[in-house]
Amino acid sequence: MPTAIQPTRAEDFPAWYQAVVREADLAEMAHAPGCMVIKPWGYGIWEQLRDRMDERIRATGHENAYFPLFVPLSYIQKEAAHVEGFAKEMAVVTHHRLEARDGVLVPAGELEEPIVVRPTSETIIGESMRQWIESYRDLPLLLNQWANVVRWEMRPRVFLRTREFLWQEGHTAHATADEAVDETLLMLEEYRRFVVDNLAMPVIVGEKPASERFPGAERTYSIEAMMQDGKALQAGTSHFLGQNFSKAADIAFTDEHGDVVHAWTTSWGVSTRLIGGVIMIHGDDDGLRVPPVVAPTQIVVVPYTKGADADEELLAYARRVADALAAGARFRGEPVRVKVDDRLYRPVDKKWQWVKRGVPLLLEVGGREAEAGTVTVRRRSDPAERSTLTIEELVAGVGDLLEALHDAYLTEASELLAANTRSDVVDWAGFEAAFAERDGVSPFVRAPWCEGATCEEQLKPLAVTIRNLPLDQPESVGACVLCGAPGTAEAVFARSY
Amino acid sequence: MPTAIQPTRAEDFPAWYQAVVREADLAEMAHAPGCMVIKPWGYGIWEQLRDRMDERIRATGHENAYFPLFVPLSYIQKEAAHVEGFAKEMAVVTHHRLEARDGVLVPAGELEEPIVVRPTSETIIGESMRQWIESYRDLPLLLNQWANVVRWEMRPRVFLRTREFLWQEGHTAHATADEAVDETLLMLEEYRRFVVDNLAMPVIVGEKPASERFPGAERTYSIEAMMQDGKALQAGTSHFLGQNFSKAADIAFTDEHGDVVHAWTTSWGVSTRLIGGVIMIHGDDDGLRVPPVVAPTQIVVVPYTKGADADEELLAYARRVADALAAGARFRGEPVRVKVDDRLYRPVDKKWQWVKRGVPLLLEVGGREAEAGTVTVRRRSDPAERSTLTIEELVAGVGDLLEALHDAYLTEASELLAANTRSDVVDWAGFEAAFAERDGVSPFVRAPWCEGATCEEQLKPLAVTIRNLPLDQPESVGACVLCGAPGTAEAVFARSY
Repeated sequence: MPTAIQPTRAEDFPAWYQAVVREADLAEMAHAPGCMVIKPWGYGIWEQLRDRMDERIRATGHENAYFPLFVPLSYIQKEAAHVEGFAKEMAVVTHHRLEARDGVLVPAGELEEPIVVRPTSETIIGESMRQWIESYRDLPLLLNQWANVVRWEMRPRVFLRTREFLWQEGHTAHATADEAVDETLLMLEEYRRFVVDNLAMPVIVGEKPASERFPGAERTYSIEAMMQDGKALQAGTSHFLGQNFSKAADIAFTDEHGDVVHAWTTSWGVSTRLIGGVIMIHGDDDGLRVPPVVAPTQIVVVPYTKGADADEELLAYARRVADALAAGARFRGEPVRVKVDDRLYRPVDKKWQWVKRGVPLLLEVGGREAEAGTVTVRRRSDPAERSTLTIEELVAGVGDLLEALHDAYLTEASELLAANTRSDVVDWAGFEAAFAERDGVSPFVRAPWCEGATCEEQLKPLAVTIRNLPLDQPESVGACVLCGAPGTAEAVFARSY
Repeated sequence: MPTAIQPTRAEDFPAWYQAVVREADLAEMAHAPGCMVIKPWGYGIWEQLRDRMDERIRATGHENAYFPLFVPLSYIQKEAAHVEGFAKEMAVVTHHRLEARDGVLVPAGELEEPIVVRPTSETIIGESMRQWIESYRDLPLLLNQWANVVRWEMRPRVFLRTREFLWQEGHTAHATADEAVDETLLMLEEYRRFVVDNLAMPVIVGEKPASERFPGAERTYSIEAMMQDGKALQAGTSHFLGQNFSKAADIAFTDEHGDVVHAWTTSWGVSTRLIGGVIMIHGDDDGLRVPPVVAPTQIVVVPYTKGADADEELLAYARRVADALAAGARFRGEPVRVKVDDRLYRPVDKKWQWVKRGVPLLLEVGGREAEAGTVTVRRRSDPAERSTLTIEELVAGVGDLLEALHDAYLTEASELLAANTRSDVVDWAGFEAAFAERDGVSPFVRAPWCEGATCEEQLKPLAVTIRNLPLDQPESVGACVLCGAPGTAEAVFARSY
């Protein structure tokens, strides 16, 4: 049977990914070099995801604020490791107007000090923290912002690595190191729960090795998901920054004893990259499959008109179905998001557009359904199967149908992760062999590591990295899978995006 | 009696404005030159405003999307009037990394083509429209984006004129000029209703004179509000762009007869500037007064503890009050936003902070209230007055209290506008005299105009501009107040921000 997406995942996974992004109307790489246009369907997923994450960020006591897009050079320079980490990929603004010379527009009005477009906001938010914090009473300071950031990637890839992307960045300051570590781990756990409950995305939660830390952090934690090609996607990070940034920016407070102390800070973020993860974890050869919780439209009603003509009677029935669902159906306690597709295109073309977009439930209504007061239901998890329900049955049962879809996607993704995680690799020969099987799915190898930087080097030719050291560690650890020295922790090794 | 804000409005309105922005914890001008940090209280107002506007934008059939921050020079250059209008205030990115030279970071990696940070997105969205529109079936295309934009203002002023600001920009394409004009006027009316219903801000709705049109537009409409110093604030604009941008970007479609036609486009926006308007229209000498609909917290409960110490019993009572309100009270059909201020500061200090921030209702609870099961209510419209209510009375009546506050603010603002709008000015001598009274409030003068560009010139020495030509025009118009020629429309003349 022909698939809606060419090539298929098995034929060429990267090309399949690009095709899904295009065919599902999610986004396109833009005119502005290396940036993306997020189309309404893709942006709708982002809005669902954003609003749900925002709710959790507020529920854990954080307040939203907004900080400038531009960072003066003098600020970004304050933390040495930080500037070192970002200097190679920053957009630099040097002029503040354009002038026509010989009919060509050229930059004019050179700035006294160049400014960079924020790649992340630790340094600029640190300046505000310094001014806002005086005493222990002002702590903890729990901030978050939703914003665009720019990192000048040399090999941009839509959603995964674009020069501009959207994200939330949490920034907090605390009176003690312990509190800051607790915050770092709290938000990490929020991220884990968030992607499992909303994106049906199982993840491995752990600490990054030193080589993969955020520039300027003491510790970086991540959640890592497995894509269908077996590669890892870092889906969210949470950083304990120690006093590195507070000392650089002089974020100090008077404690209960009257002593002046530097605060301990954290930062944490998730981005539009998550949409790339949703595509690669749940997509199939007919396109995207959106987890129901974040689907901008969860249920679409397509009137099966003759050809592309309008049929007012049928349209009226389609609207009756949609109105009944909007008024009466609930999914996780919220009204469902339902829409009638009344565009003047052929029903079969509309149907395939929605299949490719991955709408969870598609309702077909034709003359027969209108007469019988029923609908034909297609679930995106199983597009070949159909069932017929009365409107009443549908209204009562649609929440369960959506929940079942979520569960099915989560189960599939969990099975993928389990099936391709290997815990049986004990030495370098086995390790090389595990990653040499290039035809199938690249594995996650979970194995002991000595935490030495030297043996990590030998991963490079395999294009493998240490994704993280999972939080759930065994009581004792065997010999390092890379060098045979005594292991100090289990690590997850994988290829990655 | 001393006021919480120094100086008062009467003493120095611009300095009062800056003081309110600072004392109400709304925002501050930032490290990054000419940009602002929007603090949680100010950003919370923006979020309320944004979510309510977003709801109306969706309800009128528009979809959100996201377009790149960066615009290639070649795009912005396509529409001649457009580039002319914005060239003098654009941030230009010329390099994509930083390099240390002699210990100093300098821009490196020069771009082949400089890019500008979007001052507005007609040109970049036009590129997408060109690709997305093929036939009349794809029209109307109704898009909106929430984004940051940058205009390099030489005299930045917090909220009113900052180099970076936040806004929504709607961009639509239509099959006929009439439809595009209807859309332009529809969104103008949405803006009017929005600011009246949510911000208690009466406005004058009309068309801008040619000299004040958006660069590239055929017609620009605006809503104009009067601040307490009598100056006008342009609070929102809606533009009919004709075929100017569609021809520049080649946005064409095949119509029902098979002919290829250029689309007609519109754009419209409101921004964080509205917060500046809220301050200047509703603030008093004790600080901000936030209209209840957009207050991030509508009701704050302050436990009247002794000094700054915690009093667990009193705190428990304060929480009981807040919980009862959150669970049982409604304002305009939504739960109220209520908060207990449990910080370890003196109650009187907390109270004054909330007065300055303009929280609509302040509930004081002390030992007496806890014993009697009551609260002492202070309305921000009348902070000297107090009333005592039982919790049950409060829960039942708080929606009405908030609605009454909204009404009071709207009435005050409407009276200000009416009292300072002059319709009795008939000639240039009277006009000069009206604007010469520099002590009081500067007026809005509503008078006939000939729509000639020449006589508009004579307004410059008075620092007066034509704000708009109101939509509600009389049947016949007298002689032009500026030059005595036959008038063609009534205009509103005013000083402005």
